[in-house]
Amino acid sequence: MSHDDGSGWSAAAFLRDFAQLSTIGATPRGGVDREAATVRDGMARAWLGGWLASRGFAVAVDGIGNQFGLLDLVPGAPYVLAGSHLDSQPTAGRLDGAYGVVAAAFAAHRVAAGARAGTVRPTRNLAVVNWFNEEGSRFGPSMMGSAVFTGRLDADEALRTTDPAGVTVRDALDGIDGRGGPVPLPVGSYAEIHIEQGRELEETGDRIGVVTGTWAARKFRFRVLGEQSHTGSTRMADRRDALLGASLLVVEARSLADRFAEAPLHTAVSQLDVRPNSPVVVAAEVRANLDLRSPDPAVLDAAVHRLRDVAARVEAERGLRVELELTHSWDRDDYTPECVAVSERVCAELGVPARRMLTVAGHDSTNMAKVVPTAMLFVPSREGISHNEREDTAPDDLVTGVDVLTGVVRELVTAPGSGPDRQPWTPASTG
Amino acid sequence: MSHDDGSGWSAAAFLRDFAQLSTIGATPRGGVDREAATVRDGMARAWLGGWLASRGFAVAVDGIGNQFGLLDLVPGAPYVLAGSHLDSQPTAGRLDGAYGVVAAAFAAHRVAAGARAGTVRPTRNLAVVNWFNEEGSRFGPSMMGSAVFTGRLDADEALRTTDPAGVTVRDALDGIDGRGGPVPLPVGSYAEIHIEQGRELEETGDRIGVVTGTWAARKFRFRVLGEQSHTGSTRMADRRDALLGASLLVVEARSLADRFAEAPLHTAVSQLDVRPNSPVVVAAEVRANLDLRSPDPAVLDAAVHRLRDVAARVEAERGLRVELELTHSWDRDDYTPECVAVSERVCAELGVPARRMLTVAGHDSTNMAKVVPTAMLFVPSREGISHNEREDTAPDDLVTGVDVLTGVVRELVTAPGSGPDRQPWTPASTG
Ligand SMILES: [Zn+2]
Ligand SMILES: [Zn+2]
Repeated sequence: MSHDDGSGWSAAAFLRDFAQLSTIGATPRGGVDREAATVRDGMARAWLGGWLASRGFAVAVDGIGNQFGLLDLVPGAPYVLAGSHLDSQPTAGRLDGAYGVVAAAFAAHRVAAGARAGTVRPTRNLAVVNWFNEEGSRFGPSMMGSAVFTGRLDADEALRTTDPAGVTVRDALDGIDGRGGPVPLPVGSYAEIHIEQGRELEETGDRIGVVTGTWAARKFRFRVLGEQSHTGSTRMADRRDALLGASLLVVEARSLADRFAEAPLHTAVSQLDVRPNSPVVVAAEVRANLDLRSPDPAVLDAAVHRLRDVAARVEAERGLRVELELTHSWDRDDYTPECVAVSERVCAELGVPARRMLTVAGHDSTNMAKVVPTAMLFVPSREGISHNEREDTAPDDLVTGVDVLTGVVRELVTAPGSGPDRQPWTPASTG
Repeated sequence: MSHDDGSGWSAAAFLRDFAQLSTIGATPRGGVDREAATVRDGMARAWLGGWLASRGFAVAVDGIGNQFGLLDLVPGAPYVLAGSHLDSQPTAGRLDGAYGVVAAAFAAHRVAAGARAGTVRPTRNLAVVNWFNEEGSRFGPSMMGSAVFTGRLDADEALRTTDPAGVTVRDALDGIDGRGGPVPLPVGSYAEIHIEQGRELEETGDRIGVVTGTWAARKFRFRVLGEQSHTGSTRMADRRDALLGASLLVVEARSLADRFAEAPLHTAVSQLDVRPNSPVVVAAEVRANLDLRSPDPAVLDAAVHRLRDVAARVEAERGLRVELELTHSWDRDDYTPECVAVSERVCAELGVPARRMLTVAGHDSTNMAKVVPTAMLFVPSREGISHNEREDTAPDDLVTGVDVLTGVVRELVTAPGSGPDRQPWTPASTG
């Protein structure tokens, strides 16, 4: 189904260009290391800027480092925006985010070629985006660029955020020439494609997931406060061991996942810092994250209730103080039904087996869906492996994803005046 | 019992000088921060060098940064060495180690004054020591200076050790002019006084602990190996969560301590590092310490057996690999019975209630006892609080400790030719 449509499109070209991008920050085991606003992220952004500019896109960067490629087809019309993120976890697969950006670039380029050839009749303009800092591993929170773009996070607050070495987002972005000014970009609709990061498609044999909603989530930071003492000489009964308290919560978080049978519950503690973290001093303080996710908010609420009970018991029995702070909370969010319908129609026309599904992880599209009609697509992930250098997707599936995204972008760009994008979103100044 | 013996000794002078030392690296909550070979450690060493030199001691530093004050009374005779360590944990009490160094300096100074006045007839020379890096929080292993001095650790290996920032012991010592050459010091016997770091003396009302031996210990480093995955989207059954495995071991270590009723068992995990330690990536690897201590080696062996069983179960049930590496192991070590007798005789003569006890923690005296007759004394610790800025001992108890240590040093310095120090220890070149 991949044919030359005047854009110079070929599956081989896509795979070749994506392989080239994957050499930037490549790790020995086939992944990439391109944390937000590092040198390697800067190099990936330079690569994308070059790709877009040489194909006629006007490249622009906003005040929080979101990188855009704009292609005007209909002066004054809103834009169909498509993209994802080029930044990565410290050691990550090469597809997470980057696939969606390059797929969007190819999709936009192909639709533009169709417009030039007269086979596509645009009513909207086209834009590609590389959202800044989706991963959040270096600077919190994750999905930073799209959060600022959609007005959910203050730009100055984001720019002041520091990494563990004390470097601000502002300085890190300036170090890669990654901070620009306001980009005049009224967005009518948004489309994103991403690897599934699960194994549902692999198991059902479908080639495309049409995402209809996001699991509900409750994200906590917790702090366990004990007291320093000597790891050898202090009597066990006198110890107030913050690491013991934290470990009991880690174990409880896991057993919560097994406790609720009504709906899947995913729980995780993955970042944990011990103070003073000495081989001879019982820990006085532990800080950690704790995430709970489920398609069913009622399951989440019951799990949180149980978690608070266990925290109170740990406090009472172990002489500790446990602080649980809810940092992020969202209930099940739905994507625009009209966009789901567009995606399903495109898959049907291309003969691609597709299924509706939910996303467990948040994406930049989660932010965008709050302001404009948004289409979200998945391609299969081998064994569901994610945030891991072994993450992979079959080349055929990658190419099929580009075809489907191209179809969706084409539909959105040619939508009549009464299309899904009745209320374009213009970001507040992020300069 | 504190009278002027010609040395200018007074309890007030001791407390005044100790308070002055405690201003170096003082923390807001009354403790100190003088990690080995930091600027503050250098300042404390400079203070001690000045104190000793102005009272006639020849100050010398060996190749691993042990700081000595030598006072020759009997040319060619072996030395009675007394001391402890001035370095501290990152946030620690002001007494741990430093009390023993200053007490030894005062004790040696008082005994020397007695010799000058003719009331003490020395058969040995006198030396005071500040052992380098007893704590081991910045550079491992702990008790580094005394380990090199007693030939248990290679000097070059110790000098090559790096701190978490990659600085070597060699460079850190050179940065505070803390590295010298061979010190000609045949040691006949050793004496040390330290805070108890437990609450046995407080509970019995005794004022001095005469240490007869050290608890047995097994120290491990463990590594749990899992696999990176997505904290949100990866199915729970597919996760191989290294932090969960480590937490199960932390909880097990604690429950081991409750399981053995025959003899006390102290267990601790206090230093734990998670990789990649990201809020969105399930941990692939956790490294931690794990210590087991008991007066009864049979209890330790049973506990280690149980620990290995649990580690194997964690591996099997959680899809993880657990590596347990034994890094330090010692069975119960006894101090020289003749030195125990000397200490008890001194306490009896001074009318100080004393009791025999074991030390749970290792001390520099643990190393010294392996090469020369060694006396080890404890003063009470308020509530047993240790490795904590709230560590404290009543001033009266501190002064009593100096009196008892002075008596013990006097006994050792005046021992007849057939005294406990029949085989002086001369350190290998540490230059
Ligand atoms: Zn992503
Ligand atoms: Zn100490």
